Amino acid sequence: MSGKMKAIVKHKRGYGAELQTVDIPKIHDGEVLIKVKATSICGTDVHIYTWDEWSRRRVNPPYVFGHEFSGEVVEIGAHVTSIKVGDFVSAETHIVCGACLQCLAGKFHICKNTKIVGVDTQGCFAEYVALPAGNLWRNPVDMDPDIASIQEPMGNAVHTVLSGDVAGKNMAIIGCGPIGLMAIAVAKAVGASTVLAIDINDYRLKLAKKMGASHTIHSKLIDPIAYVEQLTNGCGVDVVCEMSGHPTAIKQGFKMITNGGRLSILSLPSEPVEVNITEDIVFKGITVQGITGRLMFTTWQQVSNLLASGQVNIGSLITHHFPLNEFAKGFDLMIKGQCGKVILHP
Amino acid sequence: MSGKMKAIVKHKRGYGAELQTVDIPKIHDGEVLIKVKATSICGTDVHIYTWDEWSRRRVNPPYVFGHEFSGEVVEIGAHVTSIKVGDFVSAETHIVCGACLQCLAGKFHICKNTKIVGVDTQGCFAEYVALPAGNLWRNPVDMDPDIASIQEPMGNAVHTVLSGDVAGKNMAIIGCGPIGLMAIAVAKAVGASTVLAIDINDYRLKLAKKMGASHTIHSKLIDPIAYVEQLTNGCGVDVVCEMSGHPTAIKQGFKMITNGGRLSILSLPSEPVEVNITEDIVFKGITVQGITGRLMFTTWQQVSNLLASGQVNIGSLITHHFPLNEFAKGFDLMIKGQCGKVILHP
Amino acid sequence: MSGKMKAIVKHKRGYGAELQTVDIPKIHDGEVLIKVKATSICGTDVHIYTWDEWSRRRVNPPYVFGHEFSGEVVEIGAHVTSIKVGDFVSAETHIVCGACLQCLAGKFHICKNTKIVGVDTQGCFAEYVALPAGNLWRNPVDMDPDIASIQEPMGNAVHTVLSGDVAGKNMAIIGCGPIGLMAIAVAKAVGASTVLAIDINDYRLKLAKKMGASHTIHSKLIDPIAYVEQLTNGCGVDVVCEMSGHPTAIKQGFKMITNGGRLSILSLPSEPVEVNITEDIVFKGITVQGITGRLMFTTWQQVSNLLASGQVNIGSLITHHFPLNEFAKGFDLMIKGQCGKVILHP
Amino acid sequence: MSGKMKAIVKHKRGYGAELQTVDIPKIHDGEVLIKVKATSICGTDVHIYTWDEWSRRRVNPPYVFGHEFSGEVVEIGAHVTSIKVGDFVSAETHIVCGACLQCLAGKFHICKNTKIVGVDTQGCFAEYVALPAGNLWRNPVDMDPDIASIQEPMGNAVHTVLSGDVAGKNMAIIGCGPIGLMAIAVAKAVGASTVLAIDINDYRLKLAKKMGASHTIHSKLIDPIAYVEQLTNGCGVDVVCEMSGHPTAIKQGFKMITNGGRLSILSLPSEPVEVNITEDIVFKGITVQGITGRLMFTTWQQVSNLLASGQVNIGSLITHHFPLNEFAKGFDLMIKGQCGKVILHP
Repeated sequence: MSGKMKAIVKHKRGYGAELQTVDIPKIHDGEVLIKVKATSICGTDVHIYTWDEWSRRRVNPPYVFGHEFSGEVVEIGAHVTSIKVGDFVSAETHIVCGACLQCLAGKFHICKNTKIVGVDTQGCFAEYVALPAGNLWRNPVDMDPDIASIQEPMGNAVHTVLSGDVAGKNMAIIGCGPIGLMAIAVAKAVGASTVLAIDINDYRLKLAKKMGASHTIHSKLIDPIAYVEQLTNGCGVDVVCEMSGHPTAIKQGFKMITNGGRLSILSLPSEPVEVNITEDIVFKGITVQGITGRLMFTTWQQVSNLLASGQVNIGSLITHHFPLNEFAKGFDLMIKGQCGKVILHP
Repeated sequence: MSGKMKAIVKHKRGYGAELQTVDIPKIHDGEVLIKVKATSICGTDVHIYTWDEWSRRRVNPPYVFGHEFSGEVVEIGAHVTSIKVGDFVSAETHIVCGACLQCLAGKFHICKNTKIVGVDTQGCFAEYVALPAGNLWRNPVDMDPDIASIQEPMGNAVHTVLSGDVAGKNMAIIGCGPIGLMAIAVAKAVGASTVLAIDINDYRLKLAKKMGASHTIHSKLIDPIAYVEQLTNGCGVDVVCEMSGHPTAIKQGFKMITNGGRLSILSLPSEPVEVNITEDIVFKGITVQGITGRLMFTTWQQVSNLLASGQVNIGSLITHHFPLNEFAKGFDLMIKGQCGKVILHP
Repeated sequence: MSGKMKAIVKHKRGYGAELQTVDIPKIHDGEVLIKVKATSICGTDVHIYTWDEWSRRRVNPPYVFGHEFSGEVVEIGAHVTSIKVGDFVSAETHIVCGACLQCLAGKFHICKNTKIVGVDTQGCFAEYVALPAGNLWRNPVDMDPDIASIQEPMGNAVHTVLSGDVAGKNMAIIGCGPIGLMAIAVAKAVGASTVLAIDINDYRLKLAKKMGASHTIHSKLIDPIAYVEQLTNGCGVDVVCEMSGHPTAIKQGFKMITNGGRLSILSLPSEPVEVNITEDIVFKGITVQGITGRLMFTTWQQVSNLLASGQVNIGSLITHHFPLNEFAKGFDLMIKGQCGKVILHP
Repeated sequence: MSGKMKAIVKHKRGYGAELQTVDIPKIHDGEVLIKVKATSICGTDVHIYTWDEWSRRRVNPPYVFGHEFSGEVVEIGAHVTSIKVGDFVSAETHIVCGACLQCLAGKFHICKNTKIVGVDTQGCFAEYVALPAGNLWRNPVDMDPDIASIQEPMGNAVHTVLSGDVAGKNMAIIGCGPIGLMAIAVAKAVGASTVLAIDINDYRLKLAKKMGASHTIHSKLIDPIAYVEQLTNGCGVDVVCEMSGHPTAIKQGFKMITNGGRLSILSLPSEPVEVNITEDIVFKGITVQGITGRLMFTTWQQVSNLLASGQVNIGSLITHHFPLNEFAKGFDLMIKGQCGKVILHP
């Protein structure tokens, strides 16, 4: 397939992005071309858009960014057997090497040579996107394209929550951005008895309540450590999912966790964090887990099942829709934190 | 405390039991006397009542049987510090040795020298029961005594369901007696995407639906293997909880499980069962688990949390109530399978 | 590459095999041609050779059989990037689909559509063998080709032993064929405190001693259950690896295992086996695991490391060598059980 | 039993200790009096002896300190059934509450109300020590009392090493004090393929070699990160056991670990440590575990088995012996790091 398409291009080393008309990508052997139906804005896209420290080191404009989407397969390359034209797909955004020790052990999500779609390669904020066939996940034909688009970040939430036991446990989710919000819904669906949502943004705490949080704590107004202390009769919570990236919140997470508890960190704090290893890790005998990506494709299967069964309902998380050319409105909302997920429609 | 009390006594080596007036038990050091508020009939009690093969080998009439109950502590023995008079309690029914390798490894539920309350010792079908303090579980003061009584069998259900991953999985519960029914509710609460309930009793399949089963299968009318095959596109279910004890049902369980799946067996088939180890275990790479008792006291904590949070609602499982002296009505219903849980009130 | 080669062909539906001159296999895209340096005889090959019940149902003569080997890559097909000409390789013998739920979850060894090299496809009892690049495992250049050839069955042993905790445990290996013998060496290397070897063949019990067994039991002369009972003060062993396939031995395995123990079955009993589920699985709370193949490629990595470090030394297991055309001598020894591993040299 | 005994008393809030004659302890119900045969000096004792920051906050002189020992039971209190006079015992040094959520879940080693023998209670640097019967571990009658005394710290080593998979893995032990040295021997015994020992003390690196370290690295002379990088072809080690407590060493530990690896921390750094959570935990998807005490009594069982089988030989770690009254010589050696384990004989 050849021709032109509209795409949001990170056009320069600086703030912002630009709608441009670019070539429809050519596919190589083993690749697939997809017509994008819905694409959603991730926090990572905001980092690139606002041109923060991390994005300056990592990305090379000009290129098309974006990595969360759903769409229809319109062309397949040579040697592609797992996918056919017409399939309705979403995509895993880690492109892995298949050859490092991690890949050989089936831990593809921590491949030593990972490339991320829309960060290290051309992305999906466009009418078409080309990807390796092995990265695609087939969706049910009747799935809402918007929901299908946000399965990738829901995968982060599922991976974080399910990285240890949850059933009958007390849990705190620190940071109620979209993934934190999905984590609340997932935690409830898989049996957490109590889910505390902690943030400093009223809009998002309200969404947290909607997603099923047992308690919402505005941590600038209420001391979350004292709150947990009282709620649990001095025991602390069993599991903390850290999704804020804020040093103070992380320290609070360590303090509120019970002996033998689990702290699963999905966030990316921008600076090193001081950790009281002796008091907060060793004497308490806790486990700290770094969470990256999604299990390929165990997590995708879990996401599919949780959605198909109706156990997790994330529809209400999608708060805004824009056509692709109004992308700036979506980014502004994301920057202000006055939204759930924002969907762009090419 | 001394005096007389009413109790259901397994009075002879033969069918039935008898309401008698007996001495209130004396407590020894480390023991506690409890005034029974509610006591429920277990399948094991039915074995003893009907004087089946197993009970002939195991129990020694005359004695008071029964082991599921809740009540109020009215007297504590010397050296008891964990429990005080007035506490509202239920009880773990395995009395363990604390000295075998299993106990030393914290696996008390598989103690090599387990004694079971109401089977090997005096039970709780009575106005009072005496037990080691270490077997008691303190309930919230406002808990319904009937619900508190059936936490022990709910512990079996929780132990079985949670003996492996459940979230986002397809699950079959074979055998919809009270524990199977509770397992359905638990499985849904802890994130199973699909729960199939299989039995040959319409009354109980109706209860299964009420407890949240996604599908109910009357396995005399519908081939459950073919049903699963179709439902899962030929994949099979991820987890089977076997609670029927019936050889045919067990074989069906092996056949309906997917490669790498889990078969957790709580039932006690009365005869050896032919197993096709090569086809059904080895080539499929499945795991078969024997489940006995409840983790002491991890499972009790899970049961408490699942009930307190409202995640699991087992109230509708209690279908019949009788005063202690009308015990025979309760046993008759149990024998016919025309009931959920039957509560006796001393 | 084209031309002719010598190969052992299962030439007809009946006993035996034939050395024939056949075409060197053509490779397709994604495949690799390997010049075989050493190839070893597996028990499966003996089933095919003797034309037993199982092989009559499974294999379709005429074809080249054999699946354990090492060799040098002499030609690579289109799109092969992971392997290059000159690489010294062994091969995983499960050719998997990559598309079933098991493959998508990274559990390739229990793929629902597995094809086995030399059973369902052309094998390696030949001068050359063609295989998908993804099945190859690169060996150190200085590895002994004979040792390299028997990594595949050693993978079965490693997968079985390491399917649960071993360190500081008592273990019984039932069945001392080559994989059982390797399991003994592996169990010792990874920390089993006591390893009992059980068989009815003196030749192999002697090899078991050589591989490091703490005790060897000829189960026709000594009751292995009583032996374990005495050795463990009535506790039983923590882990049983069943590699005999014999119903009596399997029943003994169930009886000698302690409460909460693990029974890992790699063998393929030819008939269904009666299992006392109540006494031997449920009340004891044990776990029974079906073991098939090797984790792809976690087990291969473990095998490589255990060999490279010198922790496991399997050289003495190779008891016989023959040129390819004397294959019948090797098969005769295997049938009599008067050998460890037999290597054929093309 | 009554009378006087010699004991090393932490006599004042300041440096040092004093040999005094004190009353033999009286035992209460459930307690046991033991005649000490051998007692060994732990790093914790050195903290108390040198009166460091931590000990100033924690201990209350005057009292008898010391917690590692072996001895013979000479008197048992009321209600003690698990132990009898004449038993040869060692002791778990965590006295737990049995009532907190951790204890109820069988995780006694992280009890929220732990008291440590010789820290919070009277210790064993004396001719006699009194302890709860539940803390005692019975040794084989023919065990060397010196070896029996150092099982407690060996338990820390075993707990740390076995807190995840080890077989066939590359491992680094950072910090070669006595527990680090034991960890080396344990790691080799339970199947680690490569064990790197890292320290800055030549005496202890020499002992590390003796205990079986594959490589010893003096981290002031050689960059351990670069060393690991080269040794593992850029992959890093699978497991790091951190036993140094030094911030630089801890940071090096994070850097040398491979994606998906495990960092088990037993050390107690005296200050908070800056951790690059984003690069070193999240993107790498590693697991950080706090390790405290020993599993009660799973670890004790493992220690017993590893010693009884001869798999782990820690005799050569005991480098010095003194009579109780020459304790100062032992403490001086410990302070200088010019010793393995130091045994005091009452």
